[in-house]
Amino acid sequence: MEKKKIAILQGDYSGPEMMQAGLAVLDAVSQNTDFEYELNQYYFGGEAIDAVGEPLPKETVAGCKKADAVLLSAIGGPKWEKETNSPEKGLLQIRNELGLFANIRPTKVIKALENHSPLKQDIISGTDFVIVRELTSGIYFGTPRVEEKDYAVDTTSYTLEEITRILKVGFEMAQRRKKHVTIVDKANVLATSRLWRKTAEKFSQDYPDTTVDYMYVDATAMKIITEPTFFDVIITANLFGDILSDEAAVLTGSLGTIPSASAGTKGPRLYEPIHGSAPTLAKQNKINPLSMIQSIELMLRDSFEREDLANRISRAIVKTIAEGIITADIGGQASTTEMTAAIIENL
Amino acid sequence: MEKKKIAILQGDYSGPEMMQAGLAVLDAVSQNTDFEYELNQYYFGGEAIDAVGEPLPKETVAGCKKADAVLLSAIGGPKWEKETNSPEKGLLQIRNELGLFANIRPTKVIKALENHSPLKQDIISGTDFVIVRELTSGIYFGTPRVEEKDYAVDTTSYTLEEITRILKVGFEMAQRRKKHVTIVDKANVLATSRLWRKTAEKFSQDYPDTTVDYMYVDATAMKIITEPTFFDVIITANLFGDILSDEAAVLTGSLGTIPSASAGTKGPRLYEPIHGSAPTLAKQNKINPLSMIQSIELMLRDSFEREDLANRISRAIVKTIAEGIITADIGGQASTTEMTAAIIENL
Ligand SMILES: CC(C)[C@H](C(=O)O)[C@@H](O)C(=O)O
Ligand SMILES: CC(C)[C@H](C(=O)O)[C@@H](O)C(=O)O
Repeated sequence: MEKKKIAILQGDYSGPEMMQAGLAVLDAVSQNTDFEYELNQYYFGGEAIDAVGEPLPKETVAGCKKADAVLLSAIGGPKWEKETNSPEKGLLQIRNELGLFANIRPTKVIKALENHSPLKQDIISGTDFVIVRELTSGIYFGTPRVEEKDYAVDTTSYTLEEITRILKVGFEMAQRRKKHVTIVDKANVLATSRLWRKTAEKFSQDYPDTTVDYMYVDATAMKIITEPTFFDVIITANLFGDILSDEAAVLTGSLGTIPSASAGTKGPRLYEPIHGSAPTLAKQNKINPLSMIQSIELMLRDSFEREDLANRISRAIVKTIAEGIITADIGGQASTTEMTAAIIENL
Repeated sequence: MEKKKIAILQGDYSGPEMMQAGLAVLDAVSQNTDFEYELNQYYFGGEAIDAVGEPLPKETVAGCKKADAVLLSAIGGPKWEKETNSPEKGLLQIRNELGLFANIRPTKVIKALENHSPLKQDIISGTDFVIVRELTSGIYFGTPRVEEKDYAVDTTSYTLEEITRILKVGFEMAQRRKKHVTIVDKANVLATSRLWRKTAEKFSQDYPDTTVDYMYVDATAMKIITEPTFFDVIITANLFGDILSDEAAVLTGSLGTIPSASAGTKGPRLYEPIHGSAPTLAKQNKINPLSMIQSIELMLRDSFEREDLANRISRAIVKTIAEGIITADIGGQASTTEMTAAIIENL
């Protein structure tokens, strides 16, 4: 087997601690298997601003493009808050540079952590859906963008092609799940939403055994809370996906555990924890390593088709949680390294 | 005292039943007081489409402009779903025609109904905040709006003046509350959001004893669930306000109880229930009348400065809920008219 190239963007504040934990698990799980990989680390985000004055240096783009997968840990924080060329801008750029137009955000409650949900148990129990968020168009990238002293303008735009390719990602995913797609938009107000809806109506005819419903974004923001088990695959535009996927993330009560993946039609995918760089927790060995570890699990499954290794990780996680060797944010007393060691032990 | 003119837009499907309930309470509470009013009913929404072919006839605009306040019940429904000139378009137009740029959405849990919240009781208990949503600009009204076969465009725009006047509504409201304002935006991506933030930073200097924080809309969507008691007054743009206020509304577990008000700098304010016209419940004497009754309570308080009458209504509501004479959606068995009669009895 050919050695896989993994690009490492280690993140800011708590980022490197999470990355270290994740890589320790990757190292352990691949011991004595035929899965071989090499890691190449690049500057990105705040770290890159400090080192070379910009959040996404050319070398980083080139390095990521050559890789088979990219692992990114959380970036940004107070140190770079006043930068115009901010870490967050780097994030927007890298999505674009790598053509990562599909952001995949699973919302699945780990049974043993259900009681951490802010929702009542009978509502949250059994929740398992995925938000497929369009990531490289919409209001995030539309022009003109105007910023004058006394007025400002942002532009949302979507093409048929952009909508079709993200629909494809979502509908294909639904085939491997419960075959239930919900298209979320604001078609009663927005032209782009109406194009989404029309395109989806047509596109879905190729998936006759898939249940498709259309829901306004405001109604969806409600239903995610009142009946999260309703959903299987949500497909939506960039901004709506940003808001709804964060709303969905806290339902699980364990933000620190959730991974995400971003994909294009070709090229490496990018895997990252969904939460921020947690500046106030940094360098205290307190951060929950699960979102990074589960991002690596996702990478093994989706980029490298190593179900075997991915499953070993997921079983080790469940076991470790059952043993209560967990960080404070999900009700335990373990440090980052203790929890990571326990997972490795349980592999 | 001069007779107050109230314009009545009775709504579609369950709308008229709610309106009738509300007006019965208004009639009862003003008996033997010096509060005098006249009602003038106009076509609006689906009803107007059926009668005269458009959702907002000129006579309705003229009638509302002459009024001291407008009462609107829920509009729209399946019957008019395929209309291009839809009931919802009428809603957007009337906001604009009456200059109602501020939508005020209280999220307050009625103690006796706390157990209906989808959230755990320790999280929801004590929640009491208001979302002040900009209502006549932003992506709802920006041009160009393009709808072609293979691409579409929507435009968001905000002027300094539009932002300043809504900030004023929110900051003034905070003075009468806990003096805590949260400005919600997506300033890490949007130019309009950065203008909101800059404008707010400057504007807030006139309110030195008010605590102001700035929060991204995605982070807010999380915090509304994990710590709703954090908020006092949220001020935000049209689309963000649409999504967040609906998210907030379901937290109370009793969507059928929540009123809303829309205001401009002058002219009549508009009061309406926040939920839809509930087509499947229509004409069965089942709809919860509370959101309409509480909208009338708001009207008495804010448009007519009749705290006395408003307080009598709110006490009667609390008493009726305590007696359990409530509709099915909040756990009782009473019909719309039974619940309304009980509230009138308790006035
Ligand atoms: C940092 C920000 C630009 C980014 C976004 O909104 O896309 C973040 O919120 C996310 O969801 O990954
Ligand atoms: C019907 C629709 C246009 C409207 C809006 O989004 O403003 C509704 O959702 C609301 O919040 O009053």
